[in-house]
Amino acid sequence: MTGIYLDNNATTRVDPDVLAEMLPLFTEHFGNPSSMHGFGAAVGGKIEWARKQVQALLGAAHDSEIVFTSGGTESDNTAILSAIEAYPKKKEIVTSVVEHPAILALCDYLEKKRGYTIHRIPVDAKGDLDMDAYRKALSENVAIVSIMWANNETGTIFPIEELAALAKGVGAVFHTDAVQAVGKIPMKLADSAVDMLSLSGHKLHAPKGIGALYVKRGLRFRPMLRGGHQERSRRAGTENAPGIVGLGAAAQLALVHMTDENTRVKALRDKLETALLAAVPNCFVTGNPDHRLPNTCNIAFEYIEGEAILLLLNEAGIAASSGSACTSGSLEPSHVMRAMGVPYTAAHGATRFSLSRDTTEAEIDAVIKVVPGIIDRLRGLSPYWAKDAARPKEFAPVYS
Amino acid sequence: MTGIYLDNNATTRVDPDVLAEMLPLFTEHFGNPSSMHGFGAAVGGKIEWARKQVQALLGAAHDSEIVFTSGGTESDNTAILSAIEAYPKKKEIVTSVVEHPAILALCDYLEKKRGYTIHRIPVDAKGDLDMDAYRKALSENVAIVSIMWANNETGTIFPIEELAALAKGVGAVFHTDAVQAVGKIPMKLADSAVDMLSLSGHKLHAPKGIGALYVKRGLRFRPMLRGGHQERSRRAGTENAPGIVGLGAAAQLALVHMTDENTRVKALRDKLETALLAAVPNCFVTGNPDHRLPNTCNIAFEYIEGEAILLLLNEAGIAASSGSACTSGSLEPSHVMRAMGVPYTAAHGATRFSLSRDTTEAEIDAVIKVVPGIIDRLRGLSPYWAKDAARPKEFAPVYS
Ligand SMILES: Cc1ncc(COP(=O)(O)O)c(C=O)c1O
Ligand SMILES: Cc1ncc(COP(=O)(O)O)c(C=O)c1O
Repeated sequence: MTGIYLDNNATTRVDPDVLAEMLPLFTEHFGNPSSMHGFGAAVGGKIEWARKQVQALLGAAHDSEIVFTSGGTESDNTAILSAIEAYPKKKEIVTSVVEHPAILALCDYLEKKRGYTIHRIPVDAKGDLDMDAYRKALSENVAIVSIMWANNETGTIFPIEELAALAKGVGAVFHTDAVQAVGKIPMKLADSAVDMLSLSGHKLHAPKGIGALYVKRGLRFRPMLRGGHQERSRRAGTENAPGIVGLGAAAQLALVHMTDENTRVKALRDKLETALLAAVPNCFVTGNPDHRLPNTCNIAFEYIEGEAILLLLNEAGIAASSGSACTSGSLEPSHVMRAMGVPYTAAHGATRFSLSRDTTEAEIDAVIKVVPGIIDRLRGLSPYWAKDAARPKEFAPVYS
Repeated sequence: MTGIYLDNNATTRVDPDVLAEMLPLFTEHFGNPSSMHGFGAAVGGKIEWARKQVQALLGAAHDSEIVFTSGGTESDNTAILSAIEAYPKKKEIVTSVVEHPAILALCDYLEKKRGYTIHRIPVDAKGDLDMDAYRKALSENVAIVSIMWANNETGTIFPIEELAALAKGVGAVFHTDAVQAVGKIPMKLADSAVDMLSLSGHKLHAPKGIGALYVKRGLRFRPMLRGGHQERSRRAGTENAPGIVGLGAAAQLALVHMTDENTRVKALRDKLETALLAAVPNCFVTGNPDHRLPNTCNIAFEYIEGEAILLLLNEAGIAASSGSACTSGSLEPSHVMRAMGVPYTAAHGATRFSLSRDTTEAEIDAVIKVVPGIIDRLRGLSPYWAKDAARPKEFAPVYS
C-alpha cells in the first residue's frame, strides 16, 4: 500500500528491523523452545532476550513479570478473569465507560451471566474520569479495577498512579489496559502500584497476534489458557517465538524512539490540529488536550458523517479512522463519544488522525491541504449544515 | 540450525513458500482489516482467502465454520468452555487418558473447581481406546466429548467417526483435538459427525501463534475471548493477519503434499522403524502400528533414559523427542506411556522420531547408522541392563 497512513492507533506497520529479527525464527531457528535439542535451545534464549526488552520498556522490576499472550484482548480478558478467580468472594468490578470492548464486553458478560456488579465510572465532556464516582465505587468487595492508561479514540491519559493507589487502598487488584500507551509514553512499573498491565504488539510496530500481560511479582494469578507449562504455567500453548522476538525488538526500538515520539511526532500532531481547527469552521478537538498521547488527534466535524469523511480521505490516499476500528460499520457514534456527551451532530463526524514515527512532515502538510476541501464538499451536501450555516465559526459546543 | 530434524510432532519448519505469502502482511499490507480504508481492505480479502484454504484442507462445508485462534491450546480450551457454557445443565465431560495437556489440564481444573465429572477413557497396551468404557460413559449428562484424532506421542489414530456418532447419539457435542492429524491424513468434515475440531499452524509448516477451531454450522457456540466483533464475534482481538495467511498457505500446501506424506514419508518412517527394531535388541514400537500417523515412530528402548538418548542424538546432530515437548524436564515417563501400561524400564526409554515432507532418505539412513551405537553405549553404563543382558533379543514386553 502507498498513501498517508494516519491510523496508527488501529494498527502500525511492522518496523523492518523488527521483521529482520523475526525472520530466522520461521525457517532456521524454528524449534520448539521446550524441546531437548539444539533446534529448541536456540529459540528459548531468544524468547528470554525478548522478555528483557519488554521488561525494559515497561520499567518492570523483573523479566519474569512479563507473560506473552496473543494480543491486547487476550491480556485484558486474562487479567480480569484471573483476578475474579483469585478473589472469588469479591463480586464487584470497577472500570470506566470509555474502555475498549476487550474490557467492556467481558464485564457485560460477567454482569449478565455471573452475577457481578460492574461499576462503570463516567467521564466528563473532556473525557476525564469522574474521580468522585471512582472513589465511591471502591470498596473491599471489588476484586479488580481495570482502567485504561490512554484512550484509543481520543488519546486522553488517565491518572493511573493515583487510580492504582486508591484501588490498592481497598485491597483491589489494579489492572490497566495500556495497549495505546505502551511505546508512546515512558513507564516505570517497578515504582508503580499497578498490578497488571496489558499491551499489544501491533500497536507498537510489532506484528499482530502477539501481546503481553505484566503481572507484578507476588500477585495472585490464575491462567486463562490451560495446558502445557509454558510461560511458567501462566499461559499454556507453544510459544509464538517469532512474534515474541518481534515484540522484543519492537520494545527495544520503542525506547530508542521515545523522544522522537514525544517531540517530533507530537509537534506534527499539533501542527495538523492547529491547522485544521483554523481552516475548518465548526469543529473541535475531543478529549483532553492537556494530558493526551503525543500521536493522537481526534477532531469532531459538525454536521457530517465520519464514514463519508473517511471515504473521501481514502480516495485522497489518506487513511484515518472514525474512532475504534472494532466498532466500524455501526451507524451509532462510538461509546466514547457518547460517554463524553459529544452532541450527535458532532459525534458522527469525529475523525481520528493517529500518527507514528513513520509519519513525515510532508504527509501532514498534504493532509492539511486536503481535509478542509473534503469537509466543505460534504457539508455542501448536508441538509443540517445548510440550516445552521449562519453560526459563527467560533461556536463552542454546549458540552464543553 | 543444521542437523537432522525428526521432531516434527513438536513443531515444524515454516515452509519458505508459506513465509513468502506472509511477508507482505508485515510491512506493506499491514492495515487493520476492520479499518475503513485501503490499508485495511487489502488485508480482509487475504484473510478470507486463507479461511477458504483451511476449509478445503478440512473438507468443511462452509468457510464460515473456520475460526482463527492463537493455536491448538486456545482452540482446545475454547471448544470445551464453549460447550459447557452452551449446555450449562450438563455437568459431565468425556475425554481420554492420552489427550494433550491442553485438554487434560482444563478438565482437571473443571473437575476440581467447577464440579464437573470427567470420564477419562482408558486405552489398552497398544494405545487403542476402550470402547466399552466409552459407551458406558456416554449419557445425556455429557456436555462434550473431546477425543483426539491422533496421539502426539505414538501417532495412534482413534476411530473418530465412530466416536462422534456415538456421542451424537446421546446429544453431546463432539470435539476432536486434531492438532497432530490435520495435514497428515485426509479429512472431510462436511460428511462427518464431528462438531468441533482443533488445529495448530506450527504442526503443519505454518508459524507458531496461529491455529483454528472448526465449528460446525448451527452448533451452539460461546466465545472464550470477548471484545471486538472479529471472527463473527467468535474470537475477539485484532486478527493475526500474517499468521492467518501463513496458515492458509500451509493448508494449501498440505493438500498438495498429502500423497507424499502418505507414501514417501510413510515409507521412510517404516524404513527407520524396521531397521532400528532389527539392529537394536530389547526395543519395541509403542502405539498401534495398524492405524497410525504416517510420519510418527515411537520406539521404547528398554533399560535406558530417554533424556540420555536425546542428549547423544543431539550431539550427533539429530533432533528427536522423548514424547511430548510440553512434559520434557520431568523425570516421570509421559502420561501416555503410563496409560498404555508400558513398563517403567521401557517407558523411560521411549523415543519419538517424527518425520515431515522435509525429511530425506539420506537423513533416515544416517539415523539408522547412529542410533544402535548410542543405545549400546548407554546400556553399557546401565546397571539394570547388565543384570538382564542375557535376555533373548526377541523378548516381548509383558504388556503387549
Ligand atoms: C485500548 C485498547 N485495548 C485493547 C485493544 C485490543 O487489542 P488487540 O486487538 O490486539 O487484541 C485495543 C486495540 O484494538 C485497544 O486500542
Ligand atoms: C495433540 C496436541 N494437542 C494440542 C497441542 C497444543 O498446541 P499448541 O502448542 O499449538 O497450543 C499439541 C502440541 O503442542 C498437540 O500435540
